[in-house]
Amino acid sequence: MTRSDRSPHGGELPSGVARIAVDLLGGDGAPAVVVDGALRACSADPDLHLVLVGPREAAGEVIGALADEDRGRVSVIPVDSAVGMADSPLRHIRRESTVRAAAEAVYMGRADAMVSAGSSGAAVAASAHVLGRLRGVRRPGLAARVPTPRGAVLLVDVGATLDATMLELVQHAVLGTAYAAVGLGIARPRVGLLSIGSEPGKGDRLRRAVSIALSDVPLPAGGRYIGLVEGFDVPRGGPADVVVTDGFTGNVLLKGIEGAISVSSDHEAAAVLLGVAGDVVVCHGAANGDQVAGGIALAARLHRERITPAVAGLADDLLTELSSAGGLTIRDALGERS
Amino acid sequence: MTRSDRSPHGGELPSGVARIAVDLLGGDGAPAVVVDGALRACSADPDLHLVLVGPREAAGEVIGALADEDRGRVSVIPVDSAVGMADSPLRHIRRESTVRAAAEAVYMGRADAMVSAGSSGAAVAASAHVLGRLRGVRRPGLAARVPTPRGAVLLVDVGATLDATMLELVQHAVLGTAYAAVGLGIARPRVGLLSIGSEPGKGDRLRRAVSIALSDVPLPAGGRYIGLVEGFDVPRGGPADVVVTDGFTGNVLLKGIEGAISVSSDHEAAAVLLGVAGDVVVCHGAANGDQVAGGIALAARLHRERITPAVAGLADDLLTELSSAGGLTIRDALGERS
Repeated sequence: MTRSDRSPHGGELPSGVARIAVDLLGGDGAPAVVVDGALRACSADPDLHLVLVGPREAAGEVIGALADEDRGRVSVIPVDSAVGMADSPLRHIRRESTVRAAAEAVYMGRADAMVSAGSSGAAVAASAHVLGRLRGVRRPGLAARVPTPRGAVLLVDVGATLDATMLELVQHAVLGTAYAAVGLGIARPRVGLLSIGSEPGKGDRLRRAVSIALSDVPLPAGGRYIGLVEGFDVPRGGPADVVVTDGFTGNVLLKGIEGAISVSSDHEAAAVLLGVAGDVVVCHGAANGDQVAGGIALAARLHRERITPAVAGLADDLLTELSSAGGLTIRDALGERS
Repeated sequence: MTRSDRSPHGGELPSGVARIAVDLLGGDGAPAVVVDGALRACSADPDLHLVLVGPREAAGEVIGALADEDRGRVSVIPVDSAVGMADSPLRHIRRESTVRAAAEAVYMGRADAMVSAGSSGAAVAASAHVLGRLRGVRRPGLAARVPTPRGAVLLVDVGATLDATMLELVQHAVLGTAYAAVGLGIARPRVGLLSIGSEPGKGDRLRRAVSIALSDVPLPAGGRYIGLVEGFDVPRGGPADVVVTDGFTGNVLLKGIEGAISVSSDHEAAAVLLGVAGDVVVCHGAANGDQVAGGIALAARLHRERITPAVAGLADDLLTELSSAGGLTIRDALGERS
């Protein structure tokens, strides 16, 4: 029970069974890579149960490779169609797909959490649509943990919310701070806003407005806004534990960093979806089996440590207040006349 | 005259004297680092003349360190105030500053090109204000050459144009293509638009609209638009020689890549300002002496190889046409009703 001892949010942590819905058709190397990852995750964690969502043949490969006594840990939801990378996420969650069926498995209580390495847009859309958003949350944010020589940096958003508004960035700062505290065990997280210089006022209109807003908004878990940070502060670590940005910039930066370093096998190629009412892990489309297994283990941890309810508890009041605040506009923050 | 032999745009190239205005007060380590860079550049290139713009004492350090016979290669424009990193670039170019005086030296014909490692916003604003923009150009773009295992990638813009519009991104694609051809010697440059996936339609509204526009716009120098590229395509190299993005995203990505790799001494910490009527090189604020010297050498090469006039010649018709086209709006490109 060492994990329960390390829990940052106290209380009795059930390290028991975690049932993870796995999208067998998600990812560049699916289903083979996902089958490999599922087997690795099973052998690493005897209390892990898998709900395999995908074609019967792929699920059969997982089951066939398991020892007899482990086969009871696996169930199958047969679905044959996936959301392709080129499909519109919004259009395709309306019909049956593995990622939608995985979200429904969580919603119906058949699984505790879900993992997909497929189109992150589809995973985000299906999660928000099927599981719903946390109260007050406009749009969810994908949070990726970036290992650095000076500790982990949580980068949020890395692709869930494009064309982000001021309110969405402030809400992601709140959610990211809460997750850094309860999910990463960082006390009093330091929160930075990604920009193109660290001096006050640097950046585009959105950044200038959000920086002013973040100076005023109380952050959960003793978090504090420390101002603007730059691109190099994410791979190097440094002033901020949580780096907030829009999903477009965050996605480009994360992939740029990945491209610049050789991605080591212990690289965490999975991101947690913040702001939806359920445990959702999105893996990199190019994840290998080890990394898919890491994503499954992360989903199991989210469930066992009750991280999403703890994040929701810390952020709820703030999110609701922010959502109902009428004046959170870029124009107002920058003191511009209408 | 090997340089003249390698010229991609033909004609007699004077590899003779190049007079480079150097902003002694620009950069985190100024003036010491700039003094060091100026001396290195002088010793590497016997035909280089320097117009040192800054305090007399700093200029005196350069002159004092030169051999007697080289002192005739240096002149001084005494200016004591710089634009600080926290200053507003727009406000401060109106009064005297080293970066403004360097641009004026180019405008008055006292120097052939300029180099600054100070605030890039100030260098861009001063250049556009004093030198003017090329015909049709809305806003200039900073183009950085990123070395990769598969050849250089030109990333444009890396910080000149925040809150970029569709027209500005298309114009930067035109300018970047012309510069890749004449400045980097890349035949028929392949041009990519930075987004969060490579499938058509991926990205935010701006990217979706610009991608449609780039499919229709003829590019100079035989350049061709190859579609969307991702963050990792910049450090790894790959499908595109020229990667187009807004200045916010480009700056964050470039710094993220720099932070992820150990910046080697042959790293080119200088960017070329495209779209202004003159030769302007902007060095990284954290550039070391070697890198400042590299920036000075790049400015000398821009001048000697007449790269800016060649870029202007290739891009002029397109830029003017784009600038006068009324229908280049995101709404139109995406086929949205007004």
